[in-house]
Amino acid sequence: MSREYRVALMGATGAVGTAMLEILEERNFPVSSLKLLASHRSAGALKSFKDETVVVEELTHDSFEDVDLVLASAGGSISKEFLPTAVKNNCISIDNTSAFRMDPDTPLVIPEVNMHAAHDHQGIIANPNCSTIQMLVALKPIYDAVGINRIVVSTYQSVSGKGGACINELVDQTTSALNGRPVKCENFPHQMAFNVSFDWPFADNDYTEEEMKMVHETHKIFEDDSIGVSPTTVRVPVFYAHSESINVETREKLSAVDAREILQASEGVVVMDQPAERQYPLATDVAGSDSVFVGRIREDVSIENGLNMWVVADNLRKGAALNAVQIAERLLNIPK
Amino acid sequence: MSREYRVALMGATGAVGTAMLEILEERNFPVSSLKLLASHRSAGALKSFKDETVVVEELTHDSFEDVDLVLASAGGSISKEFLPTAVKNNCISIDNTSAFRMDPDTPLVIPEVNMHAAHDHQGIIANPNCSTIQMLVALKPIYDAVGINRIVVSTYQSVSGKGGACINELVDQTTSALNGRPVKCENFPHQMAFNVSFDWPFADNDYTEEEMKMVHETHKIFEDDSIGVSPTTVRVPVFYAHSESINVETREKLSAVDAREILQASEGVVVMDQPAERQYPLATDVAGSDSVFVGRIREDVSIENGLNMWVVADNLRKGAALNAVQIAERLLNIPK
Repeated sequence: MSREYRVALMGATGAVGTAMLEILEERNFPVSSLKLLASHRSAGALKSFKDETVVVEELTHDSFEDVDLVLASAGGSISKEFLPTAVKNNCISIDNTSAFRMDPDTPLVIPEVNMHAAHDHQGIIANPNCSTIQMLVALKPIYDAVGINRIVVSTYQSVSGKGGACINELVDQTTSALNGRPVKCENFPHQMAFNVSFDWPFADNDYTEEEMKMVHETHKIFEDDSIGVSPTTVRVPVFYAHSESINVETREKLSAVDAREILQASEGVVVMDQPAERQYPLATDVAGSDSVFVGRIREDVSIENGLNMWVVADNLRKGAALNAVQIAERLLNIPK
Repeated sequence: MSREYRVALMGATGAVGTAMLEILEERNFPVSSLKLLASHRSAGALKSFKDETVVVEELTHDSFEDVDLVLASAGGSISKEFLPTAVKNNCISIDNTSAFRMDPDTPLVIPEVNMHAAHDHQGIIANPNCSTIQMLVALKPIYDAVGINRIVVSTYQSVSGKGGACINELVDQTTSALNGRPVKCENFPHQMAFNVSFDWPFADNDYTEEEMKMVHETHKIFEDDSIGVSPTTVRVPVFYAHSESINVETREKLSAVDAREILQASEGVVVMDQPAERQYPLATDVAGSDSVFVGRIREDVSIENGLNMWVVADNLRKGAALNAVQIAERLLNIPK
């Protein structure tokens, strides 16, 4: 019998934690024991995994003693505080927060893109930002084929990327707006119902932190600081799945036909690109799927070596939980 | 007493027609008589203008005999059929449809940008596409200051741009989706509630027609085919106001500070750009306003001569009805 792992989920009651549980079960990840960790407030909650009910425990520094693998999505400050303890306990941690992403000693990994980097880990492997993951899964085959000079990207990000409370808040705001009642903002900085908006916080250069993550993470994952990345990240009133309008300036010309062919042959990518048949990826269709969907691939009408494309993926799955589980599967040589 | 005009509205019962009526009234346009024209189906409907009730009449080729100014927004095929008759009747027509926009004999006009072109009209002046208008009002001052090589734009367009029926359809779809009922599509090609999507039809090169309008109209209005324009036009579940993520590559470097200063001094533009104070234009705030709002002005982190900006305007007002009325006001020297 192949090896099984003692798995702990940090942030087990959150939107990503819930997706982690679903994905571990769907993929039949070899779990010998499962520890669901969360804040004191959430301790005692019941979650189901396979045919069992698991009681959520409070996360403490003693939580890692009988654990092999930690999947963390409880927020950056929690990861910063607790993952060093997990490392001391010889756990491998896959961290879904931004806490260690830019740490030079921590690999930042998308399995289809740079799995080689994962093997140099020192106990922690960082999962990139959701917007970065889907963009780079779609762009890596193009980068390998013809090189990339510059990326201009505008995102259409779903509210679930900001956590489960934001899903409920969009429902509440929408209901209020349709009924002519005042719209309340608790988690969003602005009305999100029937609006598009920006996330806080902003960086010093007037980009949002989310935008600068896309710049820095692209450089780190591709190991190429020469790629220009110009992002605008926008939140839209969609529950699940992020969409991205990506303009890419390649080093050598790549036709739309060739780009489609290259992407069709690429791992983790589904090309859905027959506009005459109304086939292009849309958030509501892609939600719940595991792949990165690419459509609207067309040659840039403004420059010689340019392509436009539309990239959609489920931000909680490929953008977060699934990518983390895939890293663990490959690192531990778990057959899929 | 200054001159008054006999005005006819074609498409008086539509979303743009309704905005036209509001704007004529708000701006106290010198109307001596008002004819509301629509299809046979809508004839007999009652609309109010100032303190009067006006009965909608069926549009026929005899509708223009006692008319000076036609404001047309009944669809491209209706404009193609009827505006030549208006010309024969010596009317001036401002056409909000795409029917004559690319006709070399028809000026395509944004008053703040190229009012000079309007004076060469031969009876018809075309109003540009809503997405083009707000983009070029924001970019003209930058074009004049430092030149523009290339524009990469992704839009976040409200459903009212597709007509009044789409506003109702978004309400219905949203209610269905929140109640777990099947979502019906009659006017949209796909689910629009909690989704982002593309408009039909597509052009031969896999761009949408809306995208290619932004390319061709930019060239015509700026009288400069050398500007590269690479658009992705996207419909979002917002009722009113279009937002645009614009990346512009200028001929000479322009700092964000200088761009803000230039735009602040520009006609028709409101700069709303203090992200630290949560000040940037958002669709729900801009809806109902007359200006083009520009925010998130920041230097491109990927190239030397680049700027990113976020441009929002009410698509039914500045993007359609207001722009048409402004053209008429200036052409007829109506004091404002």
